Amino acid sequence: MTSTVKKTLALAKVYQLLEPGPVVLVSTTNGTRPNIMTMSWHMMVDFEPPILACVISNRGFTFDIVKKTKELVLNIPTVELAKTVVACGNCTGQSVDKFKKFGLTPTPASLVQAPLIGECYANLECKVIDTKLASKYNIFICEVVHAWIDRKQLHPRTIHHHGNGTFVVDGPTIKLPSKMK
Amino acid sequence: MTSTVKKTLALAKVYQLLEPGPVVLVSTTNGTRPNIMTMSWHMMVDFEPPILACVISNRGFTFDIVKKTKELVLNIPTVELAKTVVACGNCTGQSVDKFKKFGLTPTPASLVQAPLIGECYANLECKVIDTKLASKYNIFICEVVHAWIDRKQLHPRTIHHHGNGTFVVDGPTIKLPSKMK
Repeated sequence: MTSTVKKTLALAKVYQLLEPGPVVLVSTTNGTRPNIMTMSWHMMVDFEPPILACVISNRGFTFDIVKKTKELVLNIPTVELAKTVVACGNCTGQSVDKFKKFGLTPTPASLVQAPLIGECYANLECKVIDTKLASKYNIFICEVVHAWIDRKQLHPRTIHHHGNGTFVVDGPTIKLPSKMK
Repeated sequence: MTSTVKKTLALAKVYQLLEPGPVVLVSTTNGTRPNIMTMSWHMMVDFEPPILACVISNRGFTFDIVKKTKELVLNIPTVELAKTVVACGNCTGQSVDKFKKFGLTPTPASLVQAPLIGECYANLECKVIDTKLASKYNIFICEVVHAWIDRKQLHPRTIHHHGNGTFVVDGPTIKLPSKMK
């Protein structure tokens, strides 16, 4: 797998990527080396600037890094990366450099120190803006400060976790007249 | 459409329904009449007891009801209900009884006053347990106290909102060896 050339995505469109609930890969750095965590527990909170909430287990390696650096990147993988997504969820960054182990490419972000995962079709650079519920519920409120997308992927199919390694892949698209944003 | 007979779903399995990020219908009651709101901004927060977070706009009719009653039901529709899902998102309960208008069946819940939507294949009875972020971000933390599922629907296909009335329907399922819950 090689990294791809990404274009900036308008921040007002970020919700369209996350609202459907895809599995994402969270990338961070502790200053020494980068790390990756598989995550499904996230939701949009506001449209623009795009605010999201996510749950990062306090038993994992990523929790302390995010609490300290207040930065993370949400990378959205397509189904082609499904095995890597599971592999990233099956080991801890405490003992493994997941970028190296799984042949993923850390590429520089524009506004955070945490790297983008080159192989993911979209990357959302985030800064933590509220940790009021971090101690009790592991919830972090984040603002997406820059978004990237690979426009060459015309029909990216994301995956949705149903538990225990079972994923549903995006199927057909339907369009209905709607006043909803 | 008619209501279906539901079975109790073990609370430990609730995350398997919400983690994939389906569009849900939120049902509530103000004591006088029930209401419905279409929602995509929700996430799991803990496995058992199942805790979830959701965003309910303070510009809508549901916000004040949930803040006052601290109760709501998350109903999960399948693709067959897509038009109704959009219709519920396109009008306000302030002037319309959406159950009547859209031919949906309010059925009694077991532990909350808010009704279940009979036509949805799963229903999660929720009590609000934390409103610390409700004023600033419209975020409500809820515990699922009882869950119902229609076991006759063997392959329910949910829908995921990509913005502006575009929905992706569940496609194929893949299973990968995973240590993840």
